[in-house]
Amino acid sequence: MQSTMMKTPLSLNHLLERAGHLFAGNEVVSRLPDKTLRRHTYGDFYRRTRSLASALGQLGMKKGDRVATLCWNHHVHLECYFGIPAAGGVMHTLNLRLAPEEIGWIAADAKDRFLVIDDVLLPLYRQFAHLHRFEKVIVFPFSGAPVDAGLADYEALLAAADPDSFDYAAHDEDDPVAMCYTSGTTGRPKGVVYSHRSTVLHTLVASLGDFWGLRGTDVVLPVTPMFHANSWGMPYGAVMMGVKLVFPGPHLHPDDLLDLIQLEPPTLSLGVPTIWMGLIQAFDASQVAGSPNHGRWKLPRGMRSLVGGAAVPEALIRAFDRHGIWILQGWGMTETSPVCTISYPRAELRDATADERYRRAAMAGVPVPLVELRVRGDDGADRPWDGQSVGEMQVRGPFITGSYHQVPVDAEKFTEDGWLRTGDVASVDALGFVKISDRTKDLIKSGGEWISSVDLENAIMAYPAVAEAAVIAVPDEKWSERPLACVVLRPGQSATPEQLRAHLLQHGFAKWQLPDRYEFIDAVPRTSTGKFWKMKLRERFVK
Amino acid sequence: MQSTMMKTPLSLNHLLERAGHLFAGNEVVSRLPDKTLRRHTYGDFYRRTRSLASALGQLGMKKGDRVATLCWNHHVHLECYFGIPAAGGVMHTLNLRLAPEEIGWIAADAKDRFLVIDDVLLPLYRQFAHLHRFEKVIVFPFSGAPVDAGLADYEALLAAADPDSFDYAAHDEDDPVAMCYTSGTTGRPKGVVYSHRSTVLHTLVASLGDFWGLRGTDVVLPVTPMFHANSWGMPYGAVMMGVKLVFPGPHLHPDDLLDLIQLEPPTLSLGVPTIWMGLIQAFDASQVAGSPNHGRWKLPRGMRSLVGGAAVPEALIRAFDRHGIWILQGWGMTETSPVCTISYPRAELRDATADERYRRAAMAGVPVPLVELRVRGDDGADRPWDGQSVGEMQVRGPFITGSYHQVPVDAEKFTEDGWLRTGDVASVDALGFVKISDRTKDLIKSGGEWISSVDLENAIMAYPAVAEAAVIAVPDEKWSERPLACVVLRPGQSATPEQLRAHLLQHGFAKWQLPDRYEFIDAVPRTSTGKFWKMKLRERFVK
Repeated sequence: MQSTMMKTPLSLNHLLERAGHLFAGNEVVSRLPDKTLRRHTYGDFYRRTRSLASALGQLGMKKGDRVATLCWNHHVHLECYFGIPAAGGVMHTLNLRLAPEEIGWIAADAKDRFLVIDDVLLPLYRQFAHLHRFEKVIVFPFSGAPVDAGLADYEALLAAADPDSFDYAAHDEDDPVAMCYTSGTTGRPKGVVYSHRSTVLHTLVASLGDFWGLRGTDVVLPVTPMFHANSWGMPYGAVMMGVKLVFPGPHLHPDDLLDLIQLEPPTLSLGVPTIWMGLIQAFDASQVAGSPNHGRWKLPRGMRSLVGGAAVPEALIRAFDRHGIWILQGWGMTETSPVCTISYPRAELRDATADERYRRAAMAGVPVPLVELRVRGDDGADRPWDGQSVGEMQVRGPFITGSYHQVPVDAEKFTEDGWLRTGDVASVDALGFVKISDRTKDLIKSGGEWISSVDLENAIMAYPAVAEAAVIAVPDEKWSERPLACVVLRPGQSATPEQLRAHLLQHGFAKWQLPDRYEFIDAVPRTSTGKFWKMKLRERFVK
Repeated sequence: MQSTMMKTPLSLNHLLERAGHLFAGNEVVSRLPDKTLRRHTYGDFYRRTRSLASALGQLGMKKGDRVATLCWNHHVHLECYFGIPAAGGVMHTLNLRLAPEEIGWIAADAKDRFLVIDDVLLPLYRQFAHLHRFEKVIVFPFSGAPVDAGLADYEALLAAADPDSFDYAAHDEDDPVAMCYTSGTTGRPKGVVYSHRSTVLHTLVASLGDFWGLRGTDVVLPVTPMFHANSWGMPYGAVMMGVKLVFPGPHLHPDDLLDLIQLEPPTLSLGVPTIWMGLIQAFDASQVAGSPNHGRWKLPRGMRSLVGGAAVPEALIRAFDRHGIWILQGWGMTETSPVCTISYPRAELRDATADERYRRAAMAGVPVPLVELRVRGDDGADRPWDGQSVGEMQVRGPFITGSYHQVPVDAEKFTEDGWLRTGDVASVDALGFVKISDRTKDLIKSGGEWISSVDLENAIMAYPAVAEAAVIAVPDEKWSERPLACVVLRPGQSATPEQLRAHLLQHGFAKWQLPDRYEFIDAVPRTSTGKFWKMKLRERFVK
């Protein structure tokens, strides 16, 4: 027996058509370099995006060609999200926080034909231009200054194009629409290529009530960059539901974000823990009578806030909750589109204490629909969901990558039965909450036992004189591996290895778990996305 | 260039696994024939559903075999929704409101192998048993009475099965999971066959924030029958998000529903206008001091209510809103899974008057994601979305049927370019709100102009002495068609054709639009779903 359902392919073009026809009056607001706001409607967005698609066709873009973007969060970047795929192209977001050599390497690896770039980012472009030749560099006059002759002007291209006569490139749902490179802490970045299908499915799932809970009456502030994991997919969800978007442009300083929140109060905002920490510190400081910014800001009570990209400390969740803002923590990777787990208020926790609810909120969360998740031990067996047993978190689903662009599938990243190995060590409890305890690469295997570098780091950082600590594994003939602690002291303070050892013993660590070496350093090296870059520490201290 | 995403198929089994692992503690409550409540958890649901699937395999069920259900809304029906597809079967819900001969005809047409039936519905079964022989009749002892020897006992089957050793039937996402027959007002019923893919996509879309807005903390009361258009798909959404379900069983009287609402206050409820009208009338009557049910009930303020299946009068929306309950009207067909349009509060109407918001709420609503909608005129051209121009509403999308089970595709139901012809005449306004004015079959084409039978009916029903009116077309040599009004008078009241003509002229109808004939009848015949059955009137009055 056969299903009688239509075989209509999933398509981003449908979301674009939807926004153009249903939400033509709703707004997309972008903050410009001079901090003024530019307002577009979804009606403008629809026509401009179709103009972009038409213009790319005129420039000779062929199906499957990569068009890179090097842009902040704003309306033109949104146009690229839909206009490039509409013309059959693949949008490749370049991460402006990477080293110029890395950006150039990535553009060359992806064989990007065209580049759409903010005029304010041209100085960065010139630092890697020698590494990859784009056929055409299309400059968005974001600052308002005229575009240099010799470079293509995005606005002029759009003005010359005809949105009405544009026809969408034919496609099936598995055709690619976008690619991102992983910001690997080890090895070369690798390309992940999303399809119409994966993007539409991820958008539907992430938009559901318990996660983003997107409604057409929402006002969404995506602080997470559109050049990193597609701003977690929010641009697609916003267009699907027709929500008002408020883009911060290049202004991510806490004071700037708080100013923007006064001008356009969001009902939903997205950011990473470091920026959110700065935000709440700036706000709380302004509450003190006589402080420089006293009375300058209000926080929108009832706003939902999605925070992810790194573990969200419970203290941050409590700090926002004091102002009536609930933080939903999410976990994901470039490889997973990225939303994989979200920590949301569960029916089963309705009668739980506030402490218990904060504890859950500080976990990575519960797998979302269409994501299968398992925790696998070194012995190849799945660990029970008992909140205790740890193993490597592995995931599978229609918006999770099964390979990397032009890289042979290897056993380090994928299991034989086709699951993605996340490289994170986790346990899952009876309600399905995932707790990430470590990176597999950061676990220290000592004498057949595992030592968690994250547990050691947290305990060392709880010592008053310590600002930061990163623990790495050092090869050891007898024990296989032993821990080494890299410690950054607070300015003007001191600590000795003996003091730290005593501190750790007090915190319940066994003697065999204590680091054998302590290295006092000036700062922990970080990746472009703010994560501890332990590879650099290993290069320095492990001979 | 290829996408790197996994090719994981969409699957109902994933939703079942999800519920079993994440929501094992949340509840599914069913009201039994004796009005007591039976409580199961999603953990029970998971194990029982896998037992059902295992038992069906033991009975020799093969992939694609149809298993019919003849059941009220309760936990066992939910088990069939997932257990039959888990074993590779196709759940075929029989509509217990149809005439017995029609049920038998439908079971034979679908070639149903097995039947799962409530014991309280066995008398109905015996009325059509001669029309189709099921290989096995599996009786759910819903009433608590022992199952007759000679019939299979659902609970005994489950008890003998092993949920742990069960393996899901292999499938791809286009494989069928369920079928429903259309309750056509013309011609024989026709089968619509849903797939894993169409069901998962419909579930994701309908669950979104502006539509069902499903969250795990919701308590959902589905009054809409699980034997008609899959209770609008809510069972799938509930399992996906792990919401608490409260099933009314066979007790759909307004007093019974109000009693159930006291016991298990819902945050979301689903029903058809006639039942909701009875509900609010019973409740409002109970508010009168000294009335029989005075003080018996409270309505849960803030509850959302989805009402559809027939046009929702604005008066009903206002009546519920007075008690803090907002009605979301939806439109759909068995052919469309069924959610196609929903009327929800739009950002653009934030500053609109209450009257304006009620007016929109009384429209069919806005197309949901993945549904493409157009309004096509007789000339084959699309009508503009100006709120004025009418044409036939046509839809396309991955959860809309492209054919009927074993029926050749015909031009009356599908366009040449593959859209479903809904048979509804509609206009769409600039915000995308659909207003349905008539059925194409009910339009009267007189002298090259269209006369709306619905407009005439509404105007005639506004005459005080008239209880109901249905207007049909009568063939006419000169004008092609002319209107005939069938009128039901209120008890003890009277009206003449002359009086009705004068009334219609006062209401702004032109002379040529007035009915040529008036027939006074005892009642308007209705279909099993409560719609005017104009075919019966045409049989009676059109020679």
